[in-house]
Order: sequence, then structure tokens, then C-alpha cells
Amino acid sequence: MFPFINKYDFLIRLINDDRENSVKKIRAAVVGYGNIGQYAIEALEAAADFEIAGIVRRNPSAADTDSVYPVVADIRELGKVDVALLCSPTRAIRAVASEILALGINTVDSFDVHSEIVALKEHLDPIARAGECTAIISAGWDPGSDSIIRTLMQAMAPKGLTYTNFGPGMSMGHSVAAKAIPGVKDALSMTIPLGTGVHRRMVYVELEPGHDIDTVTAALKADSYFASDETHVRQVDSVDALKDVGHGVSMTHKGVSGKTHNQLFEYSMRINNPALTSQFMVSAARATCRQQPGAYSVIEIPPVNFLAGDINSWISKLV
Amino acid sequence: MFPFINKYDFLIRLINDDRENSVKKIRAAVVGYGNIGQYAIEALEAAADFEIAGIVRRNPSAADTDSVYPVVADIRELGKVDVALLCSPTRAIRAVASEILALGINTVDSFDVHSEIVALKEHLDPIARAGECTAIISAGWDPGSDSIIRTLMQAMAPKGLTYTNFGPGMSMGHSVAAKAIPGVKDALSMTIPLGTGVHRRMVYVELEPGHDIDTVTAALKADSYFASDETHVRQVDSVDALKDVGHGVSMTHKGVSGKTHNQLFEYSMRINNPALTSQFMVSAARATCRQQPGAYSVIEIPPVNFLAGDINSWISKLV
Repeated sequence: MFPFINKYDFLIRLINDDRENSVKKIRAAVVGYGNIGQYAIEALEAAADFEIAGIVRRNPSAADTDSVYPVVADIRELGKVDVALLCSPTRAIRAVASEILALGINTVDSFDVHSEIVALKEHLDPIARAGECTAIISAGWDPGSDSIIRTLMQAMAPKGLTYTNFGPGMSMGHSVAAKAIPGVKDALSMTIPLGTGVHRRMVYVELEPGHDIDTVTAALKADSYFASDETHVRQVDSVDALKDVGHGVSMTHKGVSGKTHNQLFEYSMRINNPALTSQFMVSAARATCRQQPGAYSVIEIPPVNFLAGDINSWISKLV
Repeated sequence: MFPFINKYDFLIRLINDDRENSVKKIRAAVVGYGNIGQYAIEALEAAADFEIAGIVRRNPSAADTDSVYPVVADIRELGKVDVALLCSPTRAIRAVASEILALGINTVDSFDVHSEIVALKEHLDPIARAGECTAIISAGWDPGSDSIIRTLMQAMAPKGLTYTNFGPGMSMGHSVAAKAIPGVKDALSMTIPLGTGVHRRMVYVELEPGHDIDTVTAALKADSYFASDETHVRQVDSVDALKDVGHGVSMTHKGVSGKTHNQLFEYSMRINNPALTSQFMVSAARATCRQQPGAYSVIEIPPVNFLAGDINSWISKLV
């Protein structure tokens, strides 16, 4: 009706958006610069509400990286940091998170040992409270976004069975375990879903000279990573030629809502693994800025807090 | 190793569970006793952490229901009530929720007009705060559980397209709209998904004597509920013989995580519609008891709060 008012409104909105962007950007550091760390930089660059404080590495030599961001050994060298994305190996997370939370800096990690998540949370929670900051733990895709889907399925049909089928895709953990077998120069372990949460491992190995495939196969099948799954080992000339970071999940829940049986829920995805992990870590990094101090798993976070911007505008778009 | 200790642990757990159940049950009332209200009673009966205070109906005459629970006209006749499940028609929710929140009783509804959810929230929020209680609004499946999936997909791949495809299944809203067309005695409108969020309406009508199908078809196709979709009208002898409350959804999101394109996420379900709606309302009713006073949409609720019992035990099972 009054186009001029709309135009002014529009200009005022532009100015406010700009002010918000310039004043309130979340300053993030990336700790660890392996596969996930490199994708984390991309995800932060793509998120308009973040700015990158820099990268923290054990050995920040110039040769290591062609990054345009500061690369330091100690996060305190980066000035004020709101949140640190911990892209270190899972086994290092507990120590690294403890140290950074004690500085009063929020942390996000993708710690992936399912059986140790509660213990990690209970270890970090008092440190985060004392530092008046927030940790969101195990914020990759499984554990991570898949965990939220499983929780929702449980809320929709509290009785019944849930199956999580992984792959086909490369398992980082199993590939590392295979590479540790004596005689293995490089290895790729593919996770093949056989349904109802049962998986086959297809392991492609490149051997060191002087080792034979039968001995390596026997050692690998005896390893605790592989002992309980159907495992096939194949010798190849080049593992590198096979590597593809695509992965997938297919989850089903069939159960009972109230007293009504046969309610069926299915979720699946086909994704670039490190890209999704680091994107979800960035979304969780945003959510750390909206939580009371403490350590949280992803199922304790209001989902809208993973998204940038005004809550009511997301409610009108997504609810 | 020590079987006796396990047995004692088991007994202690039984005693604790029993104590928790006997002391802390959530007292719920069901407001409205149509389709959803009847399924809500079943879902509450199936939830060990709830007890049913009674049913609230406009006209609580004995002939209306064979319920074993008190049936009253005013919720205050039911004694202490922690939460009311509002199973009234969507158009009545605003008034009913306002009244009950003002009494200091939490509410849950499945208000389903997507474009009016923010307004409902903003209307109820100050009333809930004044009453020191909590409303969770639009807690069915769409809006409801689907909204949480859409939010999660957005967090995993912030750029890209999401399509929500409904059905095949009976649309309550469209069936009611069809029944309101002059000459229509009874109607069933089936939603047929054609992909990318486009739907066909298959409308089965039983006519009043003296009306012809061509006139009814023209009037129905002109109705705002049907005008923008491909709509087919079929005359049948008995609409009742066709009714089936099964429904479904298929959602896809394809987008960009960080700077990585072609990330694909899919969610689908095949469900009994009122059973899922009422189950999710019961899960949300539980969550109302864990929120600060105010009105919330489902994407503002930590997902684990929808589940009964200890948070850490859910983290170890689901995360």
C-alpha cells in the first residue's frame, strides 16, 4: 500500500543487517589442520556470521600451510576467540578441550567413541562451568546429527527397534587400524551396510615389500576393529587411487506410537564425510554462544540454535 | 564377575524406578475428545511417567464417552493438572490455550496453520510467563516432528532446497473443506505426492439427494483449499468405506555443507496419522515440564527433553 515505507524498511533492514554483521561476528579458531580442519575453514568462510581468528597447530611452521589466516601454536596468540573448533584426533579431544575451556573459550568437537561420550561430558562440564563457557561434544554426523534423528524417532514411537546402517563409505577409524597392521603401507577400509545394523568391511591394502597378503589378512582379521564383522582383504597397487570421502547412512525405526503399531520412519543421506562433519561443527559452534555454561551433547541443544539469525524467521520458514 | 552385586543393583534399580514412578508422575488432562483426543488417552496410558487427570469436553454428558476417567466441562474440576493436551480444532487453540495457561497449567497443541505459528507463539508467550507455565505449540508431525528434521537439514547443509512431500494419505483439513461444499454429504480428500512439494488432491464425495456431481466439482475446484492444486473429484456410494488414517511424508534436502555441493538428505515415514500426532504431543507434554516459563515451538526444545527418564542414559543409548 505504501511502497515508500517498504523501501525505507528495506534500507533500515540493510543497515541493521550490516551493523549486526560488523559488530556481532563469532570469532572462531580451528584447532588441528588435518582433513576436518581444512573443511572447517571452508565451512567458516561460508558462514556470514563467523570470522576466522586463526589456526592452532602443534608445529605452526610456514611450510605446513598456505593459509591466509594466522597459524599459531597457542590459541592465546590469536586474541579474543569466542569458540574453538577442535579438529584434533578423537584421542586428543579430552585434553585439548579441557585446556581451551579453562581459558574461557567455547569448544566444539566431533569426538566419536560412542561408549565414552557421557564420560567426556562429565569431565568437561565442571571445567566449562568454571570457565563460564560452553562445550558441545560429539557434534559430527554419527555421533552428531544422526543422534538427533534417533532421539526424534524415539519421541515419535517410544517402543520399537532402530537400526543405523553406515555406508557404503570409507571408515576413517578402520582405515587407520588397518594401516597399523605390520606390513601394511596404506589401507582403505570401506563400510558396507548389510542391513539391520550389520556391516561388512572391505579392506584394500598396499603392502610393504617383503610382506605377504595371507599373513597381513590373518593379522587384520584378528584385530579388535575387524574381529566381529565379516571382513574381506584385497591387495591393491595404489590405495590412494581408490580414496573417496563420500559416505552415507540409512536409518530405520519401526515402532509403536501410543498403542498403535507399525509406525515406520526412515532417514538416509549420501554425503562428503569431512564436509558434513565440519559443517555440523560450525553449526554447533554457533549454538555454543546461545547456551548456559556447561558441556552438552547435541541432543540437549534446541535445534534452531544451530542456525544463524532470528528465531522467529526460522519458525515461519521451517515449522 | 560378581553376580550378586548385579542382582542387588537390579533390585535397587527396580525400587528407584518404582519410587520415581509413584512420586513424580506428570498429571495430564486431555482437552477435546475427538479423534486426536482418543489417541492421546492411549498414548498417555502407554507412557509410564504420566497419569491421566481426566478429560475436558464442552458437553461432558455421560452418553458422550465410555471413558474410565473423569469427564468435566472445566479443567479446574480435575484438581492439580501439570499439563493439558489440547486436542481441540486448530481454530479453537488460541482461546483454549490462553485460558488454561492463565490458570498456570502447561499446554501442548498441534495447531497446524503454518503461517500463523509465530503469531500464536507471540500471543501465548506473555500469558505463559505470567502464569509461570509453559506452552509447546504445533507439536504434531507437520508442523511438529517434520519441522525438527527440516531444521536439522538446514544445519547440515545451509544452502540448498528442501522439499516436503505429503501422502499418500487423508488430509483432515481438505476433507472438512470438501464436506462444506453445498450438496456434499461426506468427503475424503487424499493428498497424493507428485514430488518437489507438488500435490494432487483426489477427492471422494458422497452427495446429498438432488445434487449433481458436475456442480459440486466446479464449486470444490474453486474453493481456496483446492484452487491451486491438481484436483480430481470422484462420486462414491460410501465415503466411510474408504477412510484410512494412514499417512506419510517424504522429505529431501540437497544442498551445500561449507563449500561442498551435492549433499543429499532424505527422510520418510509411513504412519497412522492421529497416533503419531498424539504420541508427539505426549512427548512434548513431558518436555513442557523441563522448560522455563514461556511459549515455544518444537525447534526450540532440546530433543532429549521429549524422552522419559535420565538424560545421561539416553546420551549413552542414542548419541
